[in-house]
Amino acid sequence: MFRWVRTFSTASPFLKNASMASPSLHQHSFQVFRDVPPLRKMRRRLLLDKKTLGFVPTMGALHEGHLSLIRQAATENTDVVVSIFVNPTQFGVNEDLSSYPRTWDSDVAKLEQLNDEFARLGSNTGRITAILAPTAKVMYPTLPPSSEIDGDGSFVTITPISRKLEGASRPVFFRGVATVCMKLFNIVQADRAYFGQKDVQQTVVIRRMVQDFYVDTEIKIGETVREHDGLAMSSRNVYLGARRRSVGLVLYKALKAAENAYNSGKISRSDILNAANTVTSQILSEQQALSPSERALYEVDYISLADPDTLDEVESIDPAKGAIISGAIKMVPLEESKPGEDCGLGDGQVAVRLIDNLIFKPQV
Amino acid sequence: MFRWVRTFSTASPFLKNASMASPSLHQHSFQVFRDVPPLRKMRRRLLLDKKTLGFVPTMGALHEGHLSLIRQAATENTDVVVSIFVNPTQFGVNEDLSSYPRTWDSDVAKLEQLNDEFARLGSNTGRITAILAPTAKVMYPTLPPSSEIDGDGSFVTITPISRKLEGASRPVFFRGVATVCMKLFNIVQADRAYFGQKDVQQTVVIRRMVQDFYVDTEIKIGETVREHDGLAMSSRNVYLGARRRSVGLVLYKALKAAENAYNSGKISRSDILNAANTVTSQILSEQQALSPSERALYEVDYISLADPDTLDEVESIDPAKGAIISGAIKMVPLEESKPGEDCGLGDGQVAVRLIDNLIFKPQV
Repeated sequence: MFRWVRTFSTASPFLKNASMASPSLHQHSFQVFRDVPPLRKMRRRLLLDKKTLGFVPTMGALHEGHLSLIRQAATENTDVVVSIFVNPTQFGVNEDLSSYPRTWDSDVAKLEQLNDEFARLGSNTGRITAILAPTAKVMYPTLPPSSEIDGDGSFVTITPISRKLEGASRPVFFRGVATVCMKLFNIVQADRAYFGQKDVQQTVVIRRMVQDFYVDTEIKIGETVREHDGLAMSSRNVYLGARRRSVGLVLYKALKAAENAYNSGKISRSDILNAANTVTSQILSEQQALSPSERALYEVDYISLADPDTLDEVESIDPAKGAIISGAIKMVPLEESKPGEDCGLGDGQVAVRLIDNLIFKPQV
Repeated sequence: MFRWVRTFSTASPFLKNASMASPSLHQHSFQVFRDVPPLRKMRRRLLLDKKTLGFVPTMGALHEGHLSLIRQAATENTDVVVSIFVNPTQFGVNEDLSSYPRTWDSDVAKLEQLNDEFARLGSNTGRITAILAPTAKVMYPTLPPSSEIDGDGSFVTITPISRKLEGASRPVFFRGVATVCMKLFNIVQADRAYFGQKDVQQTVVIRRMVQDFYVDTEIKIGETVREHDGLAMSSRNVYLGARRRSVGLVLYKALKAAENAYNSGKISRSDILNAANTVTSQILSEQQALSPSERALYEVDYISLADPDTLDEVESIDPAKGAIISGAIKMVPLEESKPGEDCGLGDGQVAVRLIDNLIFKPQV
């Protein structure tokens, strides 16, 4: 079934405008599509061959969290499409679109490694059939992609969920996410699409969109993949550097403290949130006591205790429903670096927003 | 391939809440679906059997314009799905949702007649395979369908096109249309969907949506079907009655006057619109001179001369592109009726908004 194909072997009008770091001309074990029609043709063939298709949408900068989703997709489908597209409409005008990491060559290498891994597993698993790496012009074919809240264009909006939590500080974010996912879902027409639990609000928005618009793709959520110490994997972590990475673990520690409170029988909002806030306050005090060349400071955007379906804040956890505890902190730029210090990509001067969450399962 | 099925032969939880005038229990030559999963099953079978599917979305109250679209769909596809759903989100809070005609039995009868007609044509044509007549709860499964411009829900917005012309006086209209069409397209997954030219802005909005969101359905536009005298067919015409129906022809006359100007070489906005406005002013004066029991009055909402892709108003027609002339008038309620007069459904007391348009084809 699988042929080795030469990527970009036919000249594409989009290739010339490619903004990728370095679109490789090497042979791959998967096809690389920059435009929709050839992917549609492939998809139709899979359908008629009664293959099943899993889809993992990404913005590239692949890490173990993505790879874990792709492994799950390959376990549950004969074929997997991975999209790599840094979607401009989900970045606000003052957000980090321009600095978002773009790592085409290493992404492709990781996907090749995965296909090697799948090949060793033989017929027990599917494999990556194609990468979809569209240009912005392909994804936004008529009007330029607007990041303004009142900007014109063709958009999907999912409210009120999109205004909560992440949406409160990023008003265009979930409009951009829902819009690009609707496009991608229509393009790929997958049987199943895979999203990580780490972006929990995204999973709630996408599930709601799929339900309300009858998107014929099943949404599967993969568990958050963490570093050995518990830090949630994120493409933005490369900007942290050692010092901020270490302090940035505060968010996970705070959420775990809240989880301990829940597991020990606490269900009131104040009990749960106090447990988390105590951790964030204490670690911030410790950092503030250090000198500017030693410390890493952060701002807590929110710690939320919410209903798992609506994301409405809850005063008390219904043990039959459980809850989602989630939070966001901003690691501000380092004030002073030390000679030879690993400050991360961007020399520690890029503010990094970290998010994380834990699901409190029903207790009955 | 075709079986006679008993509609609603299996009890559906939605049947109990059916708001249809009279969901028939007779046997039909097509299946009637009130919910999505069984339709999906049918659609998958058609796909695997390599059948082609045409889709004609309607709000019921079927007239010759709809039937013409269904005939076109049957000519171009082996199978046709017709949806009948009066979509609440495209009616503003003060618009005519409650008075919109609901004529289930006669709609079904017309579709049966069509299938008889198709059967006589034999293998040269497809036929109506199914009606999709969902409840509001099926189409809006999570939040109640909001008609408020800032109401919450899951919506598709297509701007700036949706703010122009019809959208100027009906701010939620095209949001509702785009939203329900995205749902219906995802449910039916047709090869082709059919819309009438009469709702020209709707065709532009839907085409833009399909392009921007990569909906895998080809949009086909059927010509406006007119009464013998030129009045565009519309489900709302039943509210006119004889007097307003006769005067309501003013819109078509005005557009034809503009078309004559274009065909005689005029391309400036003022020349074209003056030709139309002269007609609407003159006929209104004639009516105003009559007594309240003889006249029918109207208000011109707009007469537009616009670019066919963007619907931007044009100062001068580019003969290489052509243009769209379109208009809307409101037939106000009759002031006085005469004994025995045919005043239409609602006794002449329902204001009726009429729209129409003509395409000025490129002249080069």
